[in-house]
Amino acid sequence: MRKNFGAKPWLYPQPVFIIGSYDENGNPNAMNAAWGGIADANKIFICLAPHKTTDNILARKAFTVSMGTAETVVPCDYVGIVSGNDEPRKMEKAGFTTVKSEFVDAPVICELPMTLECRLLSYDTENDWLFGEVVNISAEESVLGDDGNIDLTKLRPIIFDGIHCAYHVIGEKVGDAFSDGAKLQ
Amino acid sequence: MRKNFGAKPWLYPQPVFIIGSYDENGNPNAMNAAWGGIADANKIFICLAPHKTTDNILARKAFTVSMGTAETVVPCDYVGIVSGNDEPRKMEKAGFTTVKSEFVDAPVICELPMTLECRLLSYDTENDWLFGEVVNISAEESVLGDDGNIDLTKLRPIIFDGIHCAYHVIGEKVGDAFSDGAKLQ
Repeated sequence: MRKNFGAKPWLYPQPVFIIGSYDENGNPNAMNAAWGGIADANKIFICLAPHKTTDNILARKAFTVSMGTAETVVPCDYVGIVSGNDEPRKMEKAGFTTVKSEFVDAPVICELPMTLECRLLSYDTENDWLFGEVVNISAEESVLGDDGNIDLTKLRPIIFDGIHCAYHVIGEKVGDAFSDGAKLQ
Repeated sequence: MRKNFGAKPWLYPQPVFIIGSYDENGNPNAMNAAWGGIADANKIFICLAPHKTTDNILARKAFTVSMGTAETVVPCDYVGIVSGNDEPRKMEKAGFTTVKSEFVDAPVICELPMTLECRLLSYDTENDWLFGEVVNISAEESVLGDDGNIDLTKLRPIIFDGIHCAYHVIGEKVGDAFSDGAKLQ
């Protein structure tokens, strides 16, 4: 028996994207967004309503997207609660420091170990649909495994549970993609 | 020190969307997609290349999106490996049975406990960008908690790790959204 919930913005998993941008004076800002995903081999989609970050991205044509992590859940939640328009010391209060991306005109947040560096492709003001080109992905060496790739158990990325307003860490491996399903062939 | 990986289709978490659709003869099909997310309070975005499912959705103007789960990881992987064009018994081999959605012209897969029932809004053939209206979300009573809402520990939704081609279950709660960040205010 199924229960109907009507039209809701629910699915699992929702990401915890921490979007980095510069304002017109070169000050870095960050915000938290849960609506988006991959849009091609080198593209990202975000549903991004008007915010200071949105203004920044439209002006600078660039942004970064870092993964929220279990270790940084408090500042990641904070940058989603407080607007840079209201709190000029937002980044400092979050404990976030930044360096400019080598690839785009946007800040890389040093405390977030995995970051997509993106150029703005388009923004649909009617629907708030933003598409960006992923120019580079960078990751701190501290979250790399022995194979040189990003290691989930070191990065500890989080997901947003929109039904219960909670953050969960990604847990244990339960299967191999392009492999376990072959058992049924 | 950061390592640069160039432009890659990587982020955490990626979803495991199992897309249900009917073909021109009313036969149900399912496929696995990891590129997409929420696109508004009642909209979903999926980057969906040409597939049998894509043809079905364009013809029927409807589809369902169910969450892959830890218990169904083998059939969820299988429907991402095998095309309904090549294997007419695909749903049977997956062990998936279906009923027609009460709300849209698309199949609900009985073995997947949480499903978004969607109408096609638009499909951009140049970029493979599909937008759908979420008309209803339904969930099996077996995955509901005492509060009548979907319970993550019962649903056990999975994420796709595109770097290591693996599926992971969503793990333990690590924070409260719109709350933990307030400590920094």
